[in-house]
Amino acid sequence: MTPDEFRRAAHELVDWIADYRARVASFPVMAAVEPGAIKEQLPRTPPERGEAFERILADVDRIIVPGLTHWPHPSFFGYFPSNGHLSSVLGDYLSTGLGALGLSWQSSPALTELEEIVTDWMRQMAGLSGAWSGVIQDTASTCTLVALICARERGSDYSLARGGLQGEARPLVVYASAHSHSSVEKAALLAGFGRNHLRLIPTDDAYGMRAQALLDAVRRDVDQGLRPCAVVATTGTTGTCAFDPVGAIAEVVRGTRMWLHVDAAMAGSAMILPECRALWEGVEGADSIVLNPHKWLGAAFDCSLYYVRDAEHLVRVMSTNPSYLRSAVDDRVKNLRDWGIPLGRRFRALKLWCLIREQGAEALRARLRRDMENARWLEAQVRAAPGWRVLAPVRLQTVCARHAPPGLEGEALDRHTLGWVERINRSGRAYLTPAVLDGRWMARVSIGALTTEEADVAAVWSAMREAAEGSIKRSHRDA
Amino acid sequence: MTPDEFRRAAHELVDWIADYRARVASFPVMAAVEPGAIKEQLPRTPPERGEAFERILADVDRIIVPGLTHWPHPSFFGYFPSNGHLSSVLGDYLSTGLGALGLSWQSSPALTELEEIVTDWMRQMAGLSGAWSGVIQDTASTCTLVALICARERGSDYSLARGGLQGEARPLVVYASAHSHSSVEKAALLAGFGRNHLRLIPTDDAYGMRAQALLDAVRRDVDQGLRPCAVVATTGTTGTCAFDPVGAIAEVVRGTRMWLHVDAAMAGSAMILPECRALWEGVEGADSIVLNPHKWLGAAFDCSLYYVRDAEHLVRVMSTNPSYLRSAVDDRVKNLRDWGIPLGRRFRALKLWCLIREQGAEALRARLRRDMENARWLEAQVRAAPGWRVLAPVRLQTVCARHAPPGLEGEALDRHTLGWVERINRSGRAYLTPAVLDGRWMARVSIGALTTEEADVAAVWSAMREAAEGSIKRSHRDA
Repeated sequence: MTPDEFRRAAHELVDWIADYRARVASFPVMAAVEPGAIKEQLPRTPPERGEAFERILADVDRIIVPGLTHWPHPSFFGYFPSNGHLSSVLGDYLSTGLGALGLSWQSSPALTELEEIVTDWMRQMAGLSGAWSGVIQDTASTCTLVALICARERGSDYSLARGGLQGEARPLVVYASAHSHSSVEKAALLAGFGRNHLRLIPTDDAYGMRAQALLDAVRRDVDQGLRPCAVVATTGTTGTCAFDPVGAIAEVVRGTRMWLHVDAAMAGSAMILPECRALWEGVEGADSIVLNPHKWLGAAFDCSLYYVRDAEHLVRVMSTNPSYLRSAVDDRVKNLRDWGIPLGRRFRALKLWCLIREQGAEALRARLRRDMENARWLEAQVRAAPGWRVLAPVRLQTVCARHAPPGLEGEALDRHTLGWVERINRSGRAYLTPAVLDGRWMARVSIGALTTEEADVAAVWSAMREAAEGSIKRSHRDA
Repeated sequence: MTPDEFRRAAHELVDWIADYRARVASFPVMAAVEPGAIKEQLPRTPPERGEAFERILADVDRIIVPGLTHWPHPSFFGYFPSNGHLSSVLGDYLSTGLGALGLSWQSSPALTELEEIVTDWMRQMAGLSGAWSGVIQDTASTCTLVALICARERGSDYSLARGGLQGEARPLVVYASAHSHSSVEKAALLAGFGRNHLRLIPTDDAYGMRAQALLDAVRRDVDQGLRPCAVVATTGTTGTCAFDPVGAIAEVVRGTRMWLHVDAAMAGSAMILPECRALWEGVEGADSIVLNPHKWLGAAFDCSLYYVRDAEHLVRVMSTNPSYLRSAVDDRVKNLRDWGIPLGRRFRALKLWCLIREQGAEALRARLRRDMENARWLEAQVRAAPGWRVLAPVRLQTVCARHAPPGLEGEALDRHTLGWVERINRSGRAYLTPAVLDGRWMARVSIGALTTEEADVAAVWSAMREAAEGSIKRSHRDA
């Protein structure tokens, strides 16, 4: 494909993307396909001969789009907002088109230096002190794994340079809230701690970690000859957007060798709002933070920021220095391969840079405030409606609701909840991802897609009432 | 940014990218900037107000481009080919524009199913049997880490479900060639094995692992009560593109619990050529393979394929199943979050799909054959030139050369080599990344950028002769 063939196809493509974004509200939110339905339409063997890009794009329309759940849809309330703002999409287009690779500073100096600049912009926007250094990783799962490996190496005084975890006599232990994300458990297991050395600490009424329970667990482990190694504090849990008390947890680890990692993957974006920062008060007492601009803030996926206070330790754990990667300036530059797991790196800074520049911090703050206001509006509606309950404090943009009319409880209530949520999802009108809270299913309404306005939140609330209350009426009538 | 604002800016952007690719040969290959020079031109604080995309693009021209080392340049001979073919760039543009995220099958069915299809296309193209299942990861570093964690869990009978590596009495040991990539050592250390449990096995004259030496090392460890756990065989080392004897290594691990991981990150692309497959004969005896279409083949970075024979084991090691990710169809679909470390996933299959469809397997094979022919031509020139030596067999597209005129040896020879390579790089005419072989620096000429034709290889050879022989003449004249 020559640059001129690319030019023609790319013009067609970006028109197609602009059209897609403009008409996204017209699609059913959730893909209405059965498992295997997409595969059935695709050839099982690779083509010998090339074909025109137009034909590929036609297949995207015909086969791929019907198999998408539409994350940019204004009625997407599932999981968490994962916004690829169009300005950030352009930044990513630059990155892919340039094809520059960051193996070392020298392999593309601008890639490294722009990353230093924009991660520092984001640090300032989130109100963090100058003690933090940032780097872009792919996802929070990876950042948390990196954090726990760094904790392991500090706690074991660099066991990797000796026998690894295999040479350690006194096991290291990791602590996290019982509401922490599944990636925390996964990271602890992948890093070799073992499930027996992971403590899930109970939470309070608002689903935040109980700092006293953490302290008790740490003391018990010390008494038993174990070594408390790391705490993961979550600021904005996935289930209910609950906040662990970072300040109180920081007090527990202070003066010990324990590592405090703050998982602010989703809610970290909210820290660009000064009025939200009380929610992670004490964060300066942490050792590492993960914050994903590719969620609510609007950077195109993947753009996960990992901040550390002791960059030297990170590099000591992650560094490699083979001859084929050395350059004459290595002592004067950052080689970001030593700040994470992968060696190769895309020019990801461009997509965050384009987002922040094209939008400006002011517009980003205004959008997040819009979403929080919409969440408060929905919260008020749910509270006021008979038979409905709000199940957790609405701190930011997640509303946890359950329709529990009198007489409906236990497994019948679960069937009711999963039933009405599934009916909404299948209708294509809106998309919600339910979750279990205190042993029972509930509906999560995670607000914050770029296109979601007050009217869309009002519409999902109507859909919820219809789907939940209507089914009760029907079952009464049928009985 | 509205879809129509995006449309305007994106048309401008893709023209810019088409122009960049068309004129890339006009740039100096290596960025000629001093450390910090890019940062100095960028504001240290984020903007409050947004600005037009045109201004950002102007800054890309003015600040970013001079800070790039141009990987798509026809005279880029550094590291390894990392080709973002323009058809694949379009596939990535689709992915970013759609903004679909693969947390689970349901979160975007087409994302998962197209990935199943294209990884299987690539399996067929590489001549692998139907016993392999593939998944797209970011880089080979990550794939190798995943492989060693899987090896660790098989070798320890799922220690992660108990005390982790911390509960193991008999240490597990990893083996790799002394010429294996730095990411292998890094993966072993991150996975918790410890440096004391990593054996770097000596190589033969062609820089491939000596299988007998491996067998001896394994026996020694068994005798000492250790548990041999994993071997990483490299097919196409970074330094010289050497091949470990996969078949003989597979014989060593056969009938044991040891895991055989094949690192074919760069050279795996060559396996689409039937005439190259003898180079990894025995690969069906391995447990996992990494093969990066984002290198020589032409997929836009990042697109690293990880193939396993026992997908169930991979999922058992990597799986998580929190309530907020469950769906009604989980028992009938692949949830690719359980095939790797990150939870979130881009729609990366699109860029490999677009590459293979737009090009067709035939054209991909023809291009790789072109590059190998160019490498053989260069090899012949180097062999024939007085004072020059080819240092390793030219298996594919990497030519390892040294200019060692009589009387020049030891550190003086190193200074000479690094000096003339650095002069070429600074001239901007071509870009080479030297490496250490048998304790002495050499020049690596890694051929295979999309735009590199015979004339470009002839030109780098002229540049090499001028830079190396010219400096000798100068020093003779000066003496």
